[in-house]
Amino acid sequence: MSIKAGIVGAAGFAGIELVRILTEHPTFELNVVTSDSLAGTPVTDLYPALLGHTDLAFEPHGLDALAECDAVFLAVPHTAAMSQVPALLEAGISVFDLSADYRLKDADVYERWYATRHTSPGLLEKAAFGLPELFASDLVRAAGERKAGHPALVACAGCYPTATSLAAAPAVRARLVSGTVIVDAVSGVTGAGKKATERTHFCFANESVEAYGVGTHRHTPEIEQILGLPGRIVFTPHLAPLNRGILSTVYLPLDAEHAKGSSIEDIHALYEGFYADDGFVQVLPIGSMPKTGSVAGSNSCHIGLALSQAGDMLIAVSAIDNLCKGAAGQAVQCANIVFGLPEATGLSASALPV
Amino acid sequence: MSIKAGIVGAAGFAGIELVRILTEHPTFELNVVTSDSLAGTPVTDLYPALLGHTDLAFEPHGLDALAECDAVFLAVPHTAAMSQVPALLEAGISVFDLSADYRLKDADVYERWYATRHTSPGLLEKAAFGLPELFASDLVRAAGERKAGHPALVACAGCYPTATSLAAAPAVRARLVSGTVIVDAVSGVTGAGKKATERTHFCFANESVEAYGVGTHRHTPEIEQILGLPGRIVFTPHLAPLNRGILSTVYLPLDAEHAKGSSIEDIHALYEGFYADDGFVQVLPIGSMPKTGSVAGSNSCHIGLALSQAGDMLIAVSAIDNLCKGAAGQAVQCANIVFGLPEATGLSASALPV
Amino acid sequence: MSIKAGIVGAAGFAGIELVRILTEHPTFELNVVTSDSLAGTPVTDLYPALLGHTDLAFEPHGLDALAECDAVFLAVPHTAAMSQVPALLEAGISVFDLSADYRLKDADVYERWYATRHTSPGLLEKAAFGLPELFASDLVRAAGERKAGHPALVACAGCYPTATSLAAAPAVRARLVSGTVIVDAVSGVTGAGKKATERTHFCFANESVEAYGVGTHRHTPEIEQILGLPGRIVFTPHLAPLNRGILSTVYLPLDAEHAKGSSIEDIHALYEGFYADDGFVQVLPIGSMPKTGSVAGSNSCHIGLALSQAGDMLIAVSAIDNLCKGAAGQAVQCANIVFGLPEATGLSASALPV
Amino acid sequence: MSIKAGIVGAAGFAGIELVRILTEHPTFELNVVTSDSLAGTPVTDLYPALLGHTDLAFEPHGLDALAECDAVFLAVPHTAAMSQVPALLEAGISVFDLSADYRLKDADVYERWYATRHTSPGLLEKAAFGLPELFASDLVRAAGERKAGHPALVACAGCYPTATSLAAAPAVRARLVSGTVIVDAVSGVTGAGKKATERTHFCFANESVEAYGVGTHRHTPEIEQILGLPGRIVFTPHLAPLNRGILSTVYLPLDAEHAKGSSIEDIHALYEGFYADDGFVQVLPIGSMPKTGSVAGSNSCHIGLALSQAGDMLIAVSAIDNLCKGAAGQAVQCANIVFGLPEATGLSASALPV
Repeated sequence: MSIKAGIVGAAGFAGIELVRILTEHPTFELNVVTSDSLAGTPVTDLYPALLGHTDLAFEPHGLDALAECDAVFLAVPHTAAMSQVPALLEAGISVFDLSADYRLKDADVYERWYATRHTSPGLLEKAAFGLPELFASDLVRAAGERKAGHPALVACAGCYPTATSLAAAPAVRARLVSGTVIVDAVSGVTGAGKKATERTHFCFANESVEAYGVGTHRHTPEIEQILGLPGRIVFTPHLAPLNRGILSTVYLPLDAEHAKGSSIEDIHALYEGFYADDGFVQVLPIGSMPKTGSVAGSNSCHIGLALSQAGDMLIAVSAIDNLCKGAAGQAVQCANIVFGLPEATGLSASALPV
Repeated sequence: MSIKAGIVGAAGFAGIELVRILTEHPTFELNVVTSDSLAGTPVTDLYPALLGHTDLAFEPHGLDALAECDAVFLAVPHTAAMSQVPALLEAGISVFDLSADYRLKDADVYERWYATRHTSPGLLEKAAFGLPELFASDLVRAAGERKAGHPALVACAGCYPTATSLAAAPAVRARLVSGTVIVDAVSGVTGAGKKATERTHFCFANESVEAYGVGTHRHTPEIEQILGLPGRIVFTPHLAPLNRGILSTVYLPLDAEHAKGSSIEDIHALYEGFYADDGFVQVLPIGSMPKTGSVAGSNSCHIGLALSQAGDMLIAVSAIDNLCKGAAGQAVQCANIVFGLPEATGLSASALPV
Repeated sequence: MSIKAGIVGAAGFAGIELVRILTEHPTFELNVVTSDSLAGTPVTDLYPALLGHTDLAFEPHGLDALAECDAVFLAVPHTAAMSQVPALLEAGISVFDLSADYRLKDADVYERWYATRHTSPGLLEKAAFGLPELFASDLVRAAGERKAGHPALVACAGCYPTATSLAAAPAVRARLVSGTVIVDAVSGVTGAGKKATERTHFCFANESVEAYGVGTHRHTPEIEQILGLPGRIVFTPHLAPLNRGILSTVYLPLDAEHAKGSSIEDIHALYEGFYADDGFVQVLPIGSMPKTGSVAGSNSCHIGLALSQAGDMLIAVSAIDNLCKGAAGQAVQCANIVFGLPEATGLSASALPV
Repeated sequence: MSIKAGIVGAAGFAGIELVRILTEHPTFELNVVTSDSLAGTPVTDLYPALLGHTDLAFEPHGLDALAECDAVFLAVPHTAAMSQVPALLEAGISVFDLSADYRLKDADVYERWYATRHTSPGLLEKAAFGLPELFASDLVRAAGERKAGHPALVACAGCYPTATSLAAAPAVRARLVSGTVIVDAVSGVTGAGKKATERTHFCFANESVEAYGVGTHRHTPEIEQILGLPGRIVFTPHLAPLNRGILSTVYLPLDAEHAKGSSIEDIHALYEGFYADDGFVQVLPIGSMPKTGSVAGSNSCHIGLALSQAGDMLIAVSAIDNLCKGAAGQAVQCANIVFGLPEATGLSASALPV
């Protein structure tokens, strides 16, 4: 079997990570990669790491180029995605959207945070949420529909929401958490995108850590939706001098009643059980904390757990690669499920050990 | 005027930063630097950056070498400091202790967190707390005593406590804060010390961010003492791949009554007023957040302020150089005050702009 | 088919890279990993990147543990290798030695540079030289012998020699080069090994470049032997602040007679022809120069070519990953050949594009 | 005494380093900083490291703004400098030009390498060459002329030429060198300038080393002119992932006759003598090699020396900070001399020891 795939916006960082994964994927066959600004340029001119791995050149955006595809991955900014999704679906093509356009179920919330009117709100309900460990049934449903001839639309979760929600969900879903949840996260510079700016200039990013988007980052409502904690997330992202990786430190106040008497061992066991069937998630032993370097280049998520001194707050720390599990890897994981493949197909590489 | 100075433990990272500052200081005259393990070695063999700036060699520890000093800076681990302080004071030498030994006013708290009995608890009350922007009167008192012939003992604040308390104190002291304060901080690798270990190996620290000491870090009680918030600090330190710098992101729940109606502009004005006379602290304009790179190598602290979406939490972010304002620079600032010099003497250099 | 494999010295950086590659290899089955100092420790305690990829724990060194192996990879220091090789071969086990012990064909040269007497000089002639692109026939012979029941001994080339020789060999073998060849190379810090030292401390290696082993590095005679240029190599290695990668800039004076009239296009065509069948080597277009980042984590070698202003010197620049093509990857490539597999088996991953 | 100074092109990396140095300088008084693209912006908006150190805002370029200056530093690209120098000199203002416009004494060589006609070739002879350790008499002459009422024009040496020439000059001037000299140098990313490009993007520069401008870099003729070795320099620059620093490894073939019998001790003594009166140059002991990290942020140059195995080639390695001794610091050093101050005024800070 071979599934024909295309990537829209393949020259960006999430896009090229999709190229990397799909060129090695045993079942997906990558036929089209698009980039308006770089149309005509061989992929390897821009990314020589892929020399010997792909001969594709970037093509201009447009439905024509994608007509033969079974699956299209959208790695374009928000609003650019929703301008293309309806036509792709109508053409019978399953869409894996890495943008924010179909993540928020409420079009009003989208409009408030993204300052733009949603142009296809009718698709919001259809869209499966692309975070397999937490929304498996969404993807199972999409897989069924696709088998029945209806193309899938998967709204892949954002990078910070993925890291944060995997750290928080087992405790939240077990109703152990009350009050406001603080999320303090650090990202590598690939998270700031391929555009050369002052923020991404080596000499400004290097040897420095900074906070940004304090109190205003658009991943806030997404985390609230995933965890079912409307208005209860305070989220502060930071930038650190590394290429790949997100570390999310999540402060979960324990509910005085439901979590009464819960030891760290109890909570650790809860997490291990929660993720027992999820090959990409590793709950570290009590006493260990994750490092982003241990997951860079992989689709893994490592989670560490500790209690505060007073014992009334769970501190859950997770590490992912923002471009892989936080973007391209997760999209391929979703596509594997939707197309009936084992979810780890083409995603089994570990991070470099050092 | 020339003030004779010595540094005990000068080969470590805080120690060598003291050497750097004192060799350029116009009034302090650095005569003795000690290191037991490196006795006999010229300072510049280990730190060639100081070639042409000092001809000193490390001497073995011991009171004899320090007998001629007016001031001694202790850059040794906790317990090693308190084993030397009483004798130094008896010899009439003022002591600026960078260790934790005299920071905590309650010997029981010290014993609980440092797992050792304090050997000179009688000196805890005498010790001035070395964080001039918040404990000016302590240092003024010590200066007066020194002038009257009594050597000073200054317990210089720790690196995380300095960054965190400068970010939090104006709001806390104005009684705007209630409930638990979460402190999420990131340090460069100099914070892990000069010892070559797996944690400090380039290849393990590079390209990675990690949390450590979660729920157990010894700076927790120090922050609680400084801010007067016993049992109300949850503190998580992280390690990021840079040499120097601490960024502390402090989440301060606003008191429903006292902070009622406080806008970010109000709070910003409060901070500007609080630090109006403190040349080392810069409160950034609303909308700006600090970067550690902007303070590395300097004694400055940059502070940025924002409110949470809901408006009920102040997010105060501060950046310092952990070795300078967080250790050696602050110690010299304290020594300047104690010896009657302008506090910025020898500390006026800015960070490199890029 | 499954080939049972063991790794001696698996806790070091080359060793753990072998673990990474062999745990994903479709044919080799990794059964034993040894480390004397870490015996009993699970691999993933030290290298959490491999969580979910291996359950092995380090075992103590010793022939017993390896008795069932078909192939053993030695990732131990020089002299430690030659103390084990004869017994392994006698036990019928093929050996892939990543140390320097069997690389130099002349035991006297070995003794001069390594300051130790060779204990099995009789094996030097038997040893195949493990640099497949330049010594294919050696490996073909070893494969034949192995098939005939005689275990192979492969002396895998060193990291700097691999990068340098791949850059220089086409020109040297075409007799275009005369006089002294200068090799100026830069390595990432993994090249300095896993041992925590002052040199490998993050804070000393970060934000700095330095030369080391100037005029005395032991890879000099190895490069001279590979290229057949005795006494004609001047080699200077440098250390740069990155984990993985070697960039070797090789200055090849063109022979006035043999290279007369050779344009850069001629030489580029020569290189492309030379490596036409070598899937791991990419000769970049004229005008492009390699970056180590484009090969990190892969078994690739990228080569760029230019002439000096005067046109009488070829400047050939190559990039490899010192731990992969410069060590573990190359060893597996050799083992693939010796065991009759396609040479790229288990080695097809590209570097991360960003 | 106070000398009024202005900086043209102050927003770039060399420009802002001039700002940093001159704001702390005891004699120069920085009154004007210009930047066409950023006119009106406070310096500290762009470079918050200077908060509390300067209140200047960038002004648009133009002679009017500079009319009151005694000295102007030009930190603009080549051709932009020569368009302003004649008018500045006519206005009686001494000029310290950091561009390449007045470095090459031969206008034809300039035209060949910079592909543009020189518009004031008559000034080339007047221009003092700004590399004090090697062209002291030039600067003494300029100082005399300025005292006599004639404004000085100093063409400050480039970054690579400074590092390289300081490493090579003592041997070259002693006629120990024959044949072609190979210069293999590595620069930090500030050397690539402030412009945000693909090359300077953090994610492309980080974790990678690359060669660039191979055989074509414009600093080649400048090095040849300084050393008096026309057509005898082969120069290859590289980029490494650090902010500041150049390491230049210079391969100097020893002349069979003049250098006959010269030991490394002889050559080391020659270098020590050569630089005996130059406070910014440190010749390291035999066996030590320089690190760029030991000079970053300072005006120092560290030099290490070794012989090749065969003893017929001197390998001289030098480290400087490309923005300081390689640009802004050296310009201020020249200005100090021209205005009759001790050359180290305002330049005495060491690099950070770690």
